[in-house]
Amino acid sequence: MTESDLAALTATDAAARIASGAISAEQYVRACLARIEAVEPEIRAFVHLDPGYAIEQARRLDDHRLQGKPLGPLHGIPVAIKDIIDTEDYPTEFGSPLFAGRRTRSDAALVAKLRAAGAVIIGKTVTTEFAYFHPGKTRNPHDTDRTPGGSSSGSAAAVASGMVPLAIGTQTNGSIIRPAAFCGVFGAKPSRGLVPRTGVLPLSPTLDVAGPFARTLPDLALALEAIAGYDAGDPDTRPPFAVPNFRAFAAEDFPIEPRFAFIRTPAWDKAEPATQQGFEQLADKLGENCIRIDLPELYADAWDIHRTIMSAEMAHNLGTIVDRGGDGVSEVLRKLVADGRAVTAVQYQRARDEAREMAQSLEGYFEHCNAIITPAAPGVAPMGIDATGNPVFCTLWTLAGLPSLSLPLLSDEDLPIGVQLVGAPNDDARLLRHAKWLIGKVAQGPKKEKRRRSK
Amino acid sequence: MTESDLAALTATDAAARIASGAISAEQYVRACLARIEAVEPEIRAFVHLDPGYAIEQARRLDDHRLQGKPLGPLHGIPVAIKDIIDTEDYPTEFGSPLFAGRRTRSDAALVAKLRAAGAVIIGKTVTTEFAYFHPGKTRNPHDTDRTPGGSSSGSAAAVASGMVPLAIGTQTNGSIIRPAAFCGVFGAKPSRGLVPRTGVLPLSPTLDVAGPFARTLPDLALALEAIAGYDAGDPDTRPPFAVPNFRAFAAEDFPIEPRFAFIRTPAWDKAEPATQQGFEQLADKLGENCIRIDLPELYADAWDIHRTIMSAEMAHNLGTIVDRGGDGVSEVLRKLVADGRAVTAVQYQRARDEAREMAQSLEGYFEHCNAIITPAAPGVAPMGIDATGNPVFCTLWTLAGLPSLSLPLLSDEDLPIGVQLVGAPNDDARLLRHAKWLIGKVAQGPKKEKRRRSK
Repeated sequence: MTESDLAALTATDAAARIASGAISAEQYVRACLARIEAVEPEIRAFVHLDPGYAIEQARRLDDHRLQGKPLGPLHGIPVAIKDIIDTEDYPTEFGSPLFAGRRTRSDAALVAKLRAAGAVIIGKTVTTEFAYFHPGKTRNPHDTDRTPGGSSSGSAAAVASGMVPLAIGTQTNGSIIRPAAFCGVFGAKPSRGLVPRTGVLPLSPTLDVAGPFARTLPDLALALEAIAGYDAGDPDTRPPFAVPNFRAFAAEDFPIEPRFAFIRTPAWDKAEPATQQGFEQLADKLGENCIRIDLPELYADAWDIHRTIMSAEMAHNLGTIVDRGGDGVSEVLRKLVADGRAVTAVQYQRARDEAREMAQSLEGYFEHCNAIITPAAPGVAPMGIDATGNPVFCTLWTLAGLPSLSLPLLSDEDLPIGVQLVGAPNDDARLLRHAKWLIGKVAQGPKKEKRRRSK
Repeated sequence: MTESDLAALTATDAAARIASGAISAEQYVRACLARIEAVEPEIRAFVHLDPGYAIEQARRLDDHRLQGKPLGPLHGIPVAIKDIIDTEDYPTEFGSPLFAGRRTRSDAALVAKLRAAGAVIIGKTVTTEFAYFHPGKTRNPHDTDRTPGGSSSGSAAAVASGMVPLAIGTQTNGSIIRPAAFCGVFGAKPSRGLVPRTGVLPLSPTLDVAGPFARTLPDLALALEAIAGYDAGDPDTRPPFAVPNFRAFAAEDFPIEPRFAFIRTPAWDKAEPATQQGFEQLADKLGENCIRIDLPELYADAWDIHRTIMSAEMAHNLGTIVDRGGDGVSEVLRKLVADGRAVTAVQYQRARDEAREMAQSLEGYFEHCNAIITPAAPGVAPMGIDATGNPVFCTLWTLAGLPSLSLPLLSDEDLPIGVQLVGAPNDDARLLRHAKWLIGKVAQGPKKEKRRRSK
């Protein structure tokens, strides 16, 4: 097996081969490092990467295996971590020059979970400034003149370009789903409270979630299972009920035919023609397995509600930094903090109440469907790396705290278009099963696919 | 047994007699109604009371028993409910003329729990206006020229004057502990999340709790056990773990000698001389079972933090009512809402963070003691019923969400002074056991008691 064959393995496959001794963790990590060496100069996904240290971790894991000790599900698998998530080894700089070289003494809870599962923490990936809009240096692997999306730019691009099989990002508005869509990979934004955020920079705790990127659905499930679970440091996580076996769910056939709802939100007119056409055709193709719903106009308030909560909470969490940061702070962040400071406590509480009410009313749709199909982004990745694209198709679902996935099922002129699959609250496991069914369905009968592409 | 002997029974005793058939629920309820008829004109604890309906409930419960059906722990026991807690039968008027005659279709979750336990919902008790400071009509049973305290004025006075064995109140600052102290009864302010608040008027959801009043500790435990537990409508309650057997804990002897900490907070100088002297003597009497701690000055911020949270949340929850209420709204409430509207979202979030940090640092004291002893109020009930006294000795513990009890263990010139016993987070059950030990200890050796009274 060549190094490039090795680097192209899925995490699931590589973990099985490492566990069986067919390949070593070191071989696999070296293959990924070789791929990184080849493409990183162009893609620029990483802010911190130490190949020697990555190999050292792999060797320790190989020793561990050779001693016959039990292995975790990610034994020997390199995982890249967004640079707003603390790691005890690498610096965590938040995408801001103000925090250059910042080090912490401990891993974020989810990083500790990854290590406990046997992962190699290979490096830190580019985030926009404080995971808001001011972009980093990363380019889209499908077209380096285009943005990879943000704020989890480096994590999405590293996975899409084959540098690592798995990476972790965070989302406060559209920061996992949008870059996953633009980069043509799988992304999961878990239900609020599933993945602990202890050691992740708090931006807007009402909205912040962390989740994985992968190149296949089983890999996504593998990563999600490793990082999910209770942590006393994150009050939104629940006491230690068992974490579902996400891998089993993602591999399971649906016991009955699922029903999807193709939902057009009040943001629908912001979708590009190719996106609109692609989704209409997808809904057609699903036939009886898909109902169509146009969300009532009252949901149009979601974007303002989200802005109120996010700006007020980011002003609280980042205000002092912005005040002291001088020129080291972008205008776009400065504006957000100023807006957030103008929010009154009453407006903030009202926005949180309205968000809860909206979430509750959205739950009603899951009486009519197993999952919602809706765009992940307005279209393909926009040109230029001075902006990260529009999160408008993620806002409502983030506000409601619903689990969602981005699936790379559509495309336009060979650039990926993401299908966002939204699940009922805390239904993350079954959402993976619905995704599997949908992927299988789309793979059947290429007729309509062809027609779409030749539009 | 005369009617007045019957009315003087504890809830625990009455429930046992009713369960055995020695007395009927109707007899017991009629005895309480007779007591109400005798003293209510002077005490004015109730806003709604329908003797015929109370007897009807008692008869139904007697029928139920005579059919050999299983009985709840409160079978046939009259319970009075503060008038900000919804009941499907009686109106719930929030102590405000704006809501005169307001009716709801359903019981608050805690009222439903009481009914399920067999209680007779005997009537609704006086609350201050929206459970804030503007007083109701109730007088202190120990001296009708004095306030019973607030905001749960009627519930405390109804129990203290022997009208009912049990009543329910709520606390956002000092509204259970203070009236319990002024009226010389037992009051419990549970840990946040123990008793569901579904159907209780939300004032400041970060701070609001509901809890019982009783004339004995076992009765307090009996009531607390009946109203505690998960309810889906209150996100602060926890999923259905078993509710502890509070009655057993309250009856248990402590396996080892407990240790108390007599804590003087930054509010200590607001305690009246008789209170200061009483607590010093109590600490002396406990000897080795009591350490003394003066809380550092940094806790002095608690009162401002509490005010910020409470005013912002009450402005959110009551602002529209106040705007529309015209002369039907008191000046003191209008002022609070105006203050709350001036709080920014950033100030509000900071106050909540600081409250959490303060609660966490207070937890450390429970490594050195089983429970904290501290005053429940500055002194005895103040003269006049145009104000409800000062909650200053409750604010810190409410802010921290810690369970606390008011125990009628001290007095000055025959007026009660409450001892507040504060427990570790969610340690409500053991707090009852510590209270039992303390009550037993105080009852021993009357020497110091005497000296205090003859000061």
